[in-house]
Amino acid sequence: MFLTRTEYDRGVNTFSPEGRLFQVEYAIEAIKLGSTAIGLKTKEGVVLAVEKRVTSPLLEPSSVEKIMEIDDHIGCAMSGLIADARTLVEHARVETQNHRFSYGEPMTVESTTQALCDLALRFGEGDEESMSRPFGVSLLIAGHDENGPCLYHTDPSGTFWQCNAKAIGSGSEGADSSLQEQYNKDLTLQEAETIALSILKQVMEEKVTPNNVDIAKVAPTYHLYSPSEVEAVIARL
Amino acid sequence: MFLTRTEYDRGVNTFSPEGRLFQVEYAIEAIKLGSTAIGLKTKEGVVLAVEKRVTSPLLEPSSVEKIMEIDDHIGCAMSGLIADARTLVEHARVETQNHRFSYGEPMTVESTTQALCDLALRFGEGDEESMSRPFGVSLLIAGHDENGPCLYHTDPSGTFWQCNAKAIGSGSEGADSSLQEQYNKDLTLQEAETIALSILKQVMEEKVTPNNVDIAKVAPTYHLYSPSEVEAVIARL
Amino acid sequence: MFLTRTEYDRGVNTFSPEGRLFQVEYAIEAIKLGSTAIGLKTKEGVVLAVEKRVTSPLLEPSSVEKIMEIDDHIGCAMSGLIADARTLVEHARVETQNHRFSYGEPMTVESTTQALCDLALRFGEGDEESMSRPFGVSLLIAGHDENGPCLYHTDPSGTFWQCNAKAIGSGSEGADSSLQEQYNKDLTLQEAETIALSILKQVMEEKVTPNNVDIAKVAPTYHLYSPSEVEAVIARL
Amino acid sequence: MFLTRTEYDRGVNTFSPEGRLFQVEYAIEAIKLGSTAIGLKTKEGVVLAVEKRVTSPLLEPSSVEKIMEIDDHIGCAMSGLIADARTLVEHARVETQNHRFSYGEPMTVESTTQALCDLALRFGEGDEESMSRPFGVSLLIAGHDENGPCLYHTDPSGTFWQCNAKAIGSGSEGADSSLQEQYNKDLTLQEAETIALSILKQVMEEKVTPNNVDIAKVAPTYHLYSPSEVEAVIARL
Amino acid sequence: MFLTRTEYDRGVNTFSPEGRLFQVEYAIEAIKLGSTAIGLKTKEGVVLAVEKRVTSPLLEPSSVEKIMEIDDHIGCAMSGLIADARTLVEHARVETQNHRFSYGEPMTVESTTQALCDLALRFGEGDEESMSRPFGVSLLIAGHDENGPCLYHTDPSGTFWQCNAKAIGSGSEGADSSLQEQYNKDLTLQEAETIALSILKQVMEEKVTPNNVDIAKVAPTYHLYSPSEVEAVIARL
Amino acid sequence: MFLTRTEYDRGVNTFSPEGRLFQVEYAIEAIKLGSTAIGLKTKEGVVLAVEKRVTSPLLEPSSVEKIMEIDDHIGCAMSGLIADARTLVEHARVETQNHRFSYGEPMTVESTTQALCDLALRFGEGDEESMSRPFGVSLLIAGHDENGPCLYHTDPSGTFWQCNAKAIGSGSEGADSSLQEQYNKDLTLQEAETIALSILKQVMEEKVTPNNVDIAKVAPTYHLYSPSEVEAVIARL
Amino acid sequence: MFLTRTEYDRGVNTFSPEGRLFQVEYAIEAIKLGSTAIGLKTKEGVVLAVEKRVTSPLLEPSSVEKIMEIDDHIGCAMSGLIADARTLVEHARVETQNHRFSYGEPMTVESTTQALCDLALRFGEGDEESMSRPFGVSLLIAGHDENGPCLYHTDPSGTFWQCNAKAIGSGSEGADSSLQEQYNKDLTLQEAETIALSILKQVMEEKVTPNNVDIAKVAPTYHLYSPSEVEAVIARL
Repeated sequence: MFLTRTEYDRGVNTFSPEGRLFQVEYAIEAIKLGSTAIGLKTKEGVVLAVEKRVTSPLLEPSSVEKIMEIDDHIGCAMSGLIADARTLVEHARVETQNHRFSYGEPMTVESTTQALCDLALRFGEGDEESMSRPFGVSLLIAGHDENGPCLYHTDPSGTFWQCNAKAIGSGSEGADSSLQEQYNKDLTLQEAETIALSILKQVMEEKVTPNNVDIAKVAPTYHLYSPSEVEAVIARL
Repeated sequence: MFLTRTEYDRGVNTFSPEGRLFQVEYAIEAIKLGSTAIGLKTKEGVVLAVEKRVTSPLLEPSSVEKIMEIDDHIGCAMSGLIADARTLVEHARVETQNHRFSYGEPMTVESTTQALCDLALRFGEGDEESMSRPFGVSLLIAGHDENGPCLYHTDPSGTFWQCNAKAIGSGSEGADSSLQEQYNKDLTLQEAETIALSILKQVMEEKVTPNNVDIAKVAPTYHLYSPSEVEAVIARL
Repeated sequence: MFLTRTEYDRGVNTFSPEGRLFQVEYAIEAIKLGSTAIGLKTKEGVVLAVEKRVTSPLLEPSSVEKIMEIDDHIGCAMSGLIADARTLVEHARVETQNHRFSYGEPMTVESTTQALCDLALRFGEGDEESMSRPFGVSLLIAGHDENGPCLYHTDPSGTFWQCNAKAIGSGSEGADSSLQEQYNKDLTLQEAETIALSILKQVMEEKVTPNNVDIAKVAPTYHLYSPSEVEAVIARL
Repeated sequence: MFLTRTEYDRGVNTFSPEGRLFQVEYAIEAIKLGSTAIGLKTKEGVVLAVEKRVTSPLLEPSSVEKIMEIDDHIGCAMSGLIADARTLVEHARVETQNHRFSYGEPMTVESTTQALCDLALRFGEGDEESMSRPFGVSLLIAGHDENGPCLYHTDPSGTFWQCNAKAIGSGSEGADSSLQEQYNKDLTLQEAETIALSILKQVMEEKVTPNNVDIAKVAPTYHLYSPSEVEAVIARL
Repeated sequence: MFLTRTEYDRGVNTFSPEGRLFQVEYAIEAIKLGSTAIGLKTKEGVVLAVEKRVTSPLLEPSSVEKIMEIDDHIGCAMSGLIADARTLVEHARVETQNHRFSYGEPMTVESTTQALCDLALRFGEGDEESMSRPFGVSLLIAGHDENGPCLYHTDPSGTFWQCNAKAIGSGSEGADSSLQEQYNKDLTLQEAETIALSILKQVMEEKVTPNNVDIAKVAPTYHLYSPSEVEAVIARL
Repeated sequence: MFLTRTEYDRGVNTFSPEGRLFQVEYAIEAIKLGSTAIGLKTKEGVVLAVEKRVTSPLLEPSSVEKIMEIDDHIGCAMSGLIADARTLVEHARVETQNHRFSYGEPMTVESTTQALCDLALRFGEGDEESMSRPFGVSLLIAGHDENGPCLYHTDPSGTFWQCNAKAIGSGSEGADSSLQEQYNKDLTLQEAETIALSILKQVMEEKVTPNNVDIAKVAPTYHLYSPSEVEAVIARL
Repeated sequence: MFLTRTEYDRGVNTFSPEGRLFQVEYAIEAIKLGSTAIGLKTKEGVVLAVEKRVTSPLLEPSSVEKIMEIDDHIGCAMSGLIADARTLVEHARVETQNHRFSYGEPMTVESTTQALCDLALRFGEGDEESMSRPFGVSLLIAGHDENGPCLYHTDPSGTFWQCNAKAIGSGSEGADSSLQEQYNKDLTLQEAETIALSILKQVMEEKVTPNNVDIAKVAPTYHLYSPSEVEAVIARL
């Protein structure tokens, strides 16, 4: 009578006998179904690149937003449930705006990431802002503050790590291997763009076009590439 | 002992081991039982057309409302549970009115759509306005704002997409194929009306009459066609 | 192990895998056990007629109220759980009184019906006014406002339809067929009375008397027939 | 695997697949275990008579209260859980006192009954005054207001009926048959007393004495008979 | 598959199909395990006598309190869970003190008993003062007010009865029989003391000493007997 | 199918069919796993002695606190879950401080014990200060007030007893027997110290040292023995 | 049918029949999966050393924080769920800041530890700050206050101990044995650094580098070692 799994995860936020939190692990599964996103940090700034799944030719490609601005100096790429990501991003936008208003200066990227993760950690608590389940989304947060460029990776457990480069989503395994081979700290921003897109190209099943990828940089301010700017990077591959 | 499905969906908003949210998937099933609705965006404006199931000759056809006005510049077609749709539309009406009152200008169509989806996403949270289950309805939101005409598609998970053309409801699969064949960006509004109705005609079992379809446009303001206007479109088929 | 039904309906307001809401369907079953009620709209006004089950000769027939006044210009007939209906009617009475007080004019029949259905839809939400289960009652709402006479039909899901004629309760199937045969828009109010009562007579097991039926009209104000007025209609059969 | 009954009634206030509310039905069972109570309406006033189960000779008979005063012009007899009845009666006393204070006139008997039933209907809602289960009690409410004498019967579902005569409790079936035979609208109050007590005598296992029955009348004010007054009625049998 | 009992009592306060409230019945079982207590009413006042189980010679007998004062004119003996009894007594003490403060006169014994039972009835309601389960205690409440001496018996269902004499606890069955044989309304207080103690002696397994019984009277004020006063009653046996 | 135990204790605070509260009984099991503690009352004051389990030589013995001060005139020894005990002690400290502040005099030992037990009794009620389960700890409360020295014993059910001597924890059975043999009311404080430690020595597996026992007295103020004072008592054995 | 374990731990904070709290035990399992951390107290101050699992060469080692500052005079090392640890540390930071603000002096290390454990103890209570499950983290809290240097160890049950030396995490068993062999109270701080790192080296699978260990001291203020300072300690091994 193997009730183990089905039993434990129903208490949304309780430990299994082995000390595991199943709902968090299941949410991580949701991300493995998501589209691939890649981030690279260089001395000049941070590059984010994402695959967009445009399931129908009648869909407006620009409305499939997988990279979003949080503040002038922070942007993020996402993989997983987009509606969940929107809630987290909206929360971060309010936090960074409040910080600017209260202290007259931009919020640091780490504090912004911590604020996002505090919300993610408290799922199942019945708080006003938290969810009754984990947020089914992973984020790559790119930013630039007094410590220079930085890149954070968050997961549904509310944990975050600072990275030099990182891939998330369904193609993350292969992409992470490629990143380890090709990354070094002295990359230019342009080289980083090329690496990000070439790796994305490997994990995508279809041909890369300005319609099915998005690229953004924070260097030192957030900028989402126009179709022609994306076309230019594609041309360099 | 296959408890899997029956077990997971009872926690209204929890992940299954594969990272799925069953209640949302079941709500999407509710929509597959609904009547078909079609939207097309043209440069002149957006057309919405819906099938109305008038189950008895004693029913007043005009009281089967499947297309509703949200604001002067926004209307929506729906498929699924009509009572749920009414709640969402009522919410959107309040939001757009508040926006006009606070800022002296109409709310953008995307913001209106986002507000609807925020409400849809938070089911099972015990909030005052949210439901204890997903909203069992899909919407096609047609609007016209400073960015010109636009068409959004929402589903019970609180996700939305911008589309050029889209069909929802029980006949959506066939209708979507036909739309991909017949749609192009240079359609006139009149051509869009004809395409919408001719596709609707294909998926409906009975003869099309002003009693069992509704047509509306936002070009640039919302207008629900009178029976004679619908008759005129039928005549063009 | 067929747990399906017993499992799903315990979450009061959750979807089954097929996209169904079982508690609502079970509530509709409650109505099928109820006494029959009939409504007909004519150009002169709306007629309501109901069967009253007077289970004991010691019961006061006039205290078995199956037709109630909501406001001067609105009345309703009911089938199902009478205590639930009383709660809905009481809610509607407060709404219509508030409307008169705030705006100095009667509430429209559609707005009144919508207010009733909003309350019905939100069962299981833990709101102050809502119930922890669906309201086990169906209503025929007859009214007269600036758009002339009108007749609405509501069910436990919070959905409503505008009708020319409609029957609810245990005899509704046969009664609806008869209505479709005999109804036309040019009926006089007196003809409508006769049709309503003759159809009611067919579905009732006992002889029709002023003790076991009630008749009311809204033309343009609500009026419940006295025993002698009912006797007069019976005499015309 | 017959889980049906045990499953459904655990959700305190939910429908079964046949549209039944089991907790209400189970509460009605509680009343079938209760002592018998009888009410008769005459033109002169209303008579209530109850069986009192005095389980020990050491019990003070007058402390087994099965008939209680609600207001000067309203009294009630009860069958079922006495502690539940006390809560309902206390609620009704507050309501009638508030009415007198606010409007300077006595509350009508129907309004008082409606107030009692509103409380009974809302079990399981988590309201401050309501219970987490149905009230396990049935009442016969005798009163006299501007419409003359009247008698109401309430049950745990929150439904009420106006009656000329009615019996509740374990002996209600036989008593109701006898009432139908012997009741007519022209009974004098004294005849009603005699009928009530003679029927009670039939359904009670022990000899009727002033210790094991109580009699009260509302004609037009509430009066509970003294032992000698009860003795006088017994003498007339 | 006899799930009946185990299923029903888990909903703390719900009816079983036979109309029973199991948690209340189980709480009554808790009392059958308790020590025996006896009360007798005479014209001069009320006597209470209880067995004290002093499980270890190192226990301070006076700290095993089974008789407590509620107010000058009210005391009570208890059987069952002592910690539950303390909560009820504390509640009654606050009520009687508030009454004295607000009205400048002592609370009647019936009102005090009603206040205790109101609290007991509402278990499982989530109220601030109520418990999540029934109070597992039965009380004999002895008092003296404007109506002279009186004795009330309460049980976990929140019901109470007025008695001339009553026994509760593990020896209540035999003790009640003896009381019925020996009680009459013309006993003197001293005779009542002797009867109470002689009956207690019959149901106790050990020799009666001032260490293992307590006696109190309300005549007309509460007085707990000193060891030497108890010794004197023992001497009279 | 023996569901009995596993079923009943899941409702944290509900009766079993035999009138038992399983969670309280299970909490009492937790105490049987705890270290042994002993208290003795003499005319000069009260002695407390406890075993300390110092599981590692790197643990600071003085940080294993099994005896704590509540107020100048009250101390307590504990067995069971130490974190639970700390919560109770902290609660008692606030109560005694508030009492001193409000009334300018120390709180009596009984009132302090009652305050502790009130908190313990209300587990599972959702109160702000109470726990969702019983407190898994037993206390020996030693104090000195206007009534002289006194010793109380509390358990997880919220019940308390006054004792002359008492042992709790894993060795309590043997220790209680020894106490009954050796205790008399005329012991000096020094004799009590010797008896407490000699009994503790019997139930402990390892050699008694100032590192693995603690001794305290309230005579009339609380004093925890220094290692050299403990050494002196050991020397007397 | 072994339901025991799966049944008990679903009530988040309830006792099993043996008096155990399973969720706490499962949380302790989570810590056994964590990285190893070691603390040593010397007369000069306290040393903390932790293993850092840098799972990818693209991860920023300094962002894997396993040692954090609480206040000038307090730091802590952690093992288990890092996001949980952050919540506890943040709570402690607010407490120590409030203490400084209110009393103008630093909070003692014991009070700080108690504050942390109070929060940990109250899981499952629905408080605003507490979690719905135990905190899955163990801490070594190093500090220096008026009593000199001190080291505390906390676990998920909310219990804490003062230690001279202690290891936590996956390698704690072997590390604790080594500590018992090598620790003495007269170690210098430099010797303590060497011992901590040499023991960590034994339990880690990879070569020790400034990238995969962190060292900190509180002597008397908190200081996290720079990579070169760590390199210097490694050089001494």
